[in-house]
Amino acid sequence: MNADAKKTTLRMIPYGIYILTADDGKGGIAAATVNWVTQTAFGPPLVVVAMKADSGAYQIVKGAGTFALNMLGKDQKGLAFTFFKPAVVAEGKISGQAYRIGETGAPILTDAVAAVECRVKTIIGEGDHHVVLGEVVEAHVMKPPSGRPDNAILEMKDLGDNVFYGG
Amino acid sequence: MNADAKKTTLRMIPYGIYILTADDGKGGIAAATVNWVTQTAFGPPLVVVAMKADSGAYQIVKGAGTFALNMLGKDQKGLAFTFFKPAVVAEGKISGQAYRIGETGAPILTDAVAAVECRVKTIIGEGDHHVVLGEVVEAHVMKPPSGRPDNAILEMKDLGDNVFYGG
Repeated sequence: MNADAKKTTLRMIPYGIYILTADDGKGGIAAATVNWVTQTAFGPPLVVVAMKADSGAYQIVKGAGTFALNMLGKDQKGLAFTFFKPAVVAEGKISGQAYRIGETGAPILTDAVAAVECRVKTIIGEGDHHVVLGEVVEAHVMKPPSGRPDNAILEMKDLGDNVFYGG
Repeated sequence: MNADAKKTTLRMIPYGIYILTADDGKGGIAAATVNWVTQTAFGPPLVVVAMKADSGAYQIVKGAGTFALNMLGKDQKGLAFTFFKPAVVAEGKISGQAYRIGETGAPILTDAVAAVECRVKTIIGEGDHHVVLGEVVEAHVMKPPSGRPDNAILEMKDLGDNVFYGG
């Protein structure tokens, strides 16, 4: 396989940007920027997120058995970069961001435009990132979109001309 | 869970449009428009595609053990709608589209802008669509993108103001 062709082709897949959050109830709170996300079923509503296998956030999601995907607005590029770094919990905030506890125990970022909460159903432990399949059990819309919902959220291409995660 | 909130939030996820193709070597040839796709690992390169569990295309992918995802250009909306319908193989074409046989045996559409070929590694049989995890073993770029690769391909939002598959 030609490495350049693989990179170019896989980078054709468009991605949104999400802050994945989780709380294992034992002091471990995760908040990490992710983009490898897709819905996978309507009934029940299922989503897949791929998580770096050696990351702290992944360990916390496995311990919690639940997670949230927080959607960002087009003007919230700074938040995406904030959560590329390890999350720091202090003074009731995660890396300076206010949050509340969702139905599943996962943190919901106050400034996100929307969020879904999921319960982990299955994990496929293949490759350097693992496939986490979650059932969507709660959904929150903090800022209703005025047009198409998929035009309202921050995407990978909004982060910069040379910013990619994929390929 | 509020059904409207679930729909709005899940429809925030942006999607590309792909023609998934497969050939089971027993006369079964699949070519179907899909959008629930994400990369899930760099090493090895893995992708997930969710396929309708009761579809003919899914049966053919399971029989073949391989599939291709063909990426379309921004001007190829018509092809996406062509492959919403069951594929018809006649005169060496699939629903009127010329193709060649890829390394894995999966059909590669001549007019696609790019394609990846995958070997099925694992399937999660949960929900009305099943999660097919494939390892990318070959990649083809027929029309190199001039800018960002993720600006070059047809997306769900390009199909029409009220066209969604998700929520």
